Amino acid sequence: MAHPPAVAADVIVVGAGISGLIAARTVLAAGLTPVILEADSRVGGRILTEEAAPGLPVELGAQWIGDTHHRMFALAEELGVQTYPQFDEGETSYELAGSGVLRENEFRARFAGELGELEKVLRLLDELAAEVPPEAPWRAPRAADWDAITAGAWYDGQALSPVARTLLEICTVGILAVPTVEVSFLHLLFTIQTCGVTSELFAESEGGAQTTRFVGGTGEIPKRLAALVTDHLVLDAPVQLIEHSDDSVTVHCRGGRTARGRRVIVAISPALAGRIMYDPPLPGKRDQLTQRMPNASAMKAFFVYDEPFWRAAGLNGQLISDVGPARMSNDTCLPGDDHGVILCFLEGEQARTYGRMPTEERRAALTAELVRHYGDKAARPAAYLDGEWADRQWTRGCYNANLGPLVWTNFGDALAEPIGTIHWASTDTAVRWSAYMEGAVEAGERAAQEVIDALTG
Amino acid sequence: MAHPPAVAADVIVVGAGISGLIAARTVLAAGLTPVILEADSRVGGRILTEEAAPGLPVELGAQWIGDTHHRMFALAEELGVQTYPQFDEGETSYELAGSGVLRENEFRARFAGELGELEKVLRLLDELAAEVPPEAPWRAPRAADWDAITAGAWYDGQALSPVARTLLEICTVGILAVPTVEVSFLHLLFTIQTCGVTSELFAESEGGAQTTRFVGGTGEIPKRLAALVTDHLVLDAPVQLIEHSDDSVTVHCRGGRTARGRRVIVAISPALAGRIMYDPPLPGKRDQLTQRMPNASAMKAFFVYDEPFWRAAGLNGQLISDVGPARMSNDTCLPGDDHGVILCFLEGEQARTYGRMPTEERRAALTAELVRHYGDKAARPAAYLDGEWADRQWTRGCYNANLGPLVWTNFGDALAEPIGTIHWASTDTAVRWSAYMEGAVEAGERAAQEVIDALTG
Repeated sequence: MAHPPAVAADVIVVGAGISGLIAARTVLAAGLTPVILEADSRVGGRILTEEAAPGLPVELGAQWIGDTHHRMFALAEELGVQTYPQFDEGETSYELAGSGVLRENEFRARFAGELGELEKVLRLLDELAAEVPPEAPWRAPRAADWDAITAGAWYDGQALSPVARTLLEICTVGILAVPTVEVSFLHLLFTIQTCGVTSELFAESEGGAQTTRFVGGTGEIPKRLAALVTDHLVLDAPVQLIEHSDDSVTVHCRGGRTARGRRVIVAISPALAGRIMYDPPLPGKRDQLTQRMPNASAMKAFFVYDEPFWRAAGLNGQLISDVGPARMSNDTCLPGDDHGVILCFLEGEQARTYGRMPTEERRAALTAELVRHYGDKAARPAAYLDGEWADRQWTRGCYNANLGPLVWTNFGDALAEPIGTIHWASTDTAVRWSAYMEGAVEAGERAAQEVIDALTG
Repeated sequence: MAHPPAVAADVIVVGAGISGLIAARTVLAAGLTPVILEADSRVGGRILTEEAAPGLPVELGAQWIGDTHHRMFALAEELGVQTYPQFDEGETSYELAGSGVLRENEFRARFAGELGELEKVLRLLDELAAEVPPEAPWRAPRAADWDAITAGAWYDGQALSPVARTLLEICTVGILAVPTVEVSFLHLLFTIQTCGVTSELFAESEGGAQTTRFVGGTGEIPKRLAALVTDHLVLDAPVQLIEHSDDSVTVHCRGGRTARGRRVIVAISPALAGRIMYDPPLPGKRDQLTQRMPNASAMKAFFVYDEPFWRAAGLNGQLISDVGPARMSNDTCLPGDDHGVILCFLEGEQARTYGRMPTEERRAALTAELVRHYGDKAARPAAYLDGEWADRQWTRGCYNANLGPLVWTNFGDALAEPIGTIHWASTDTAVRWSAYMEGAVEAGERAAQEVIDALTG
């Protein structure tokens, strides 16, 4: 078998998600030559825009940015990608606690006490999260205690009513995409702190993290970014081995392709970074960390209708449910388009259970739920599209990695710390808005700066 | 670069630990040709016998078998490896609850109530574990509840005195090698059930799992097994890629070596199996499972003395401590040898903390502890040897993988189920004595039988 010729560059970047593309673009701007090796046949990573119907792009992956996502707003402007606000008018629909489907006003009246409890816990979470330094969660004064309990166990200890506890679980799983018993309480507090406060994070009302979308689809961002570094981009190049020394790296891909450089930036999720073979091997601490950063379980399903009929009924297209299969939904209509689009979220155990069903079965279960909330018209979508992430070989789960008990305190400082000539990017390593596109940009810029400092300092 | 020639066989086995060697030997006996690809330059996997001093082999990895390890007793007999009983005479030494060092009789008198509490919890654990089918823990009647809580949280809920809770943690970490908050309660019950009852499992007194050792060292077992299949064994062959179809597999190693066969048996820990690239890629369920099976954190340290001076003082060489660094120790003298050997266990957070220290610092901390328990003579060892597993590239943690909350119920049935022409071995997939050598034999035999049935049926 003839091997492709070896490529030479200053900086090898593994992964062409936003983080890797930003890293490559940044080192290029500093006068260094990058080569990006992307395992998939497309760029974008956890961003994936596909057409649910002709001319109707939907986001199977990352979808929104929020008001404090300054890097992403600047990037969109630079790339000429326009933004528009997320629709947010009308009432949310609830189906909780065996009470059947209730509109928001009725739900709030009936469960005012429980919502007050929830509010109180969220304020407490904000207070505690403020004690967590996002660049080093393990240095929080109470890190040892908070990392020795799961978020779920901490929630259980708050003496909440069943309805308040359920609401808390739903809004947390909506962020983490795994049940709260799978994550450390310290990790939950880190997640809150990295994003600001719970009101920006939790999605019951459209808060800070999900205010804004991109015209043409989120996929425009990596597509246009890739165009800036297109001469340095190699697709279909899954990295298998990184040989590294004090002053050079050689990166080997499946099929025999190699790239040589002075530094490497690994810009994929830690779980996937841990699958690469390193020579010399990485320290045990780093390896056991990446064994403990499983990617979460998330799936999105889109129903396209002729019109957004729920709006006329005063509904905002959002639901909150403990019946499911979707625990939440969203109105994701496109600007200048008459179709109505409902996005159903399947996260955590719902993604695992329903993601393994035949599509028709999953679609039928979701349709039944939408009919309960939005009426009979919901039974007749013009189109349907869904997307699961665990099956995708070069992603293996969304939205990001959540750390279980004791991982931050026992292994956390190995997450972003360079090892010789190897640097780490991906949103999972970000300090602000980790797990979001905003964090991917930050991490890519930070890793690129480490390399620039090392090679040009 | 010239590639080694492709090898052809009926069955490719990945990994030359006991499980892979047994699998290869079993398919060979059935008239099929195996090829074993081992990443390391030695066989044995998580078994590693090294000399602490000339002629004085100690076990950095698996060490004991127990009375119900029938497969291992039969294997040792077949291979001509003799066994001898673990020394177990005298008192255990305790250093717990701020009471200083106490000998067993004194400790038992002072903490009789707490030991009674512990006994009661162990009996309850036995009762609950009996409800868990070891071949399918997710089918236990209360699996959903038990998998939705950590073992640590369950322990915390038993209203135990601090001393009883601490003892329970120490004896459990002595088995799992991770803190109890990292594992699902269902996984703990599975672990108990796969071994029988807690009295066989927990190591406070030398119970069923640790009664017997091997003359010449445990390493004799894989060494002699390997000799039976030596013509079929390839060392230094790290597998990077498995291409598989309905009737064939091609396994690619670092350096370009390939092996072609009709079936492959992957006989390495699930975390490491998940690092191999598969084409076509494995289902998301299997992939997310292996992301959630981190190998544990264990380290052993051996102190060799001119004689086992603690025996004369009526001590059995075992300690139980909440001060550490070792939470437990053991008398591991060799038969027909005058030296005294003390094995210190560093498990869970102790392995992580002390394993990252310089050897001299770790040794000094352990020495100080042994002096507290066994007197000044403990300060003057003739030799010292320790071994950590997370740093070892082809193991990356011992003793085995522990499953966190919801992993057994959400992903467990993907653990041992073949995928097309790919079969799974390693002790982590065993039904009886999973995580032990006994389980490695069972899993190797089971995977081999699957292949034999498929190819000769």
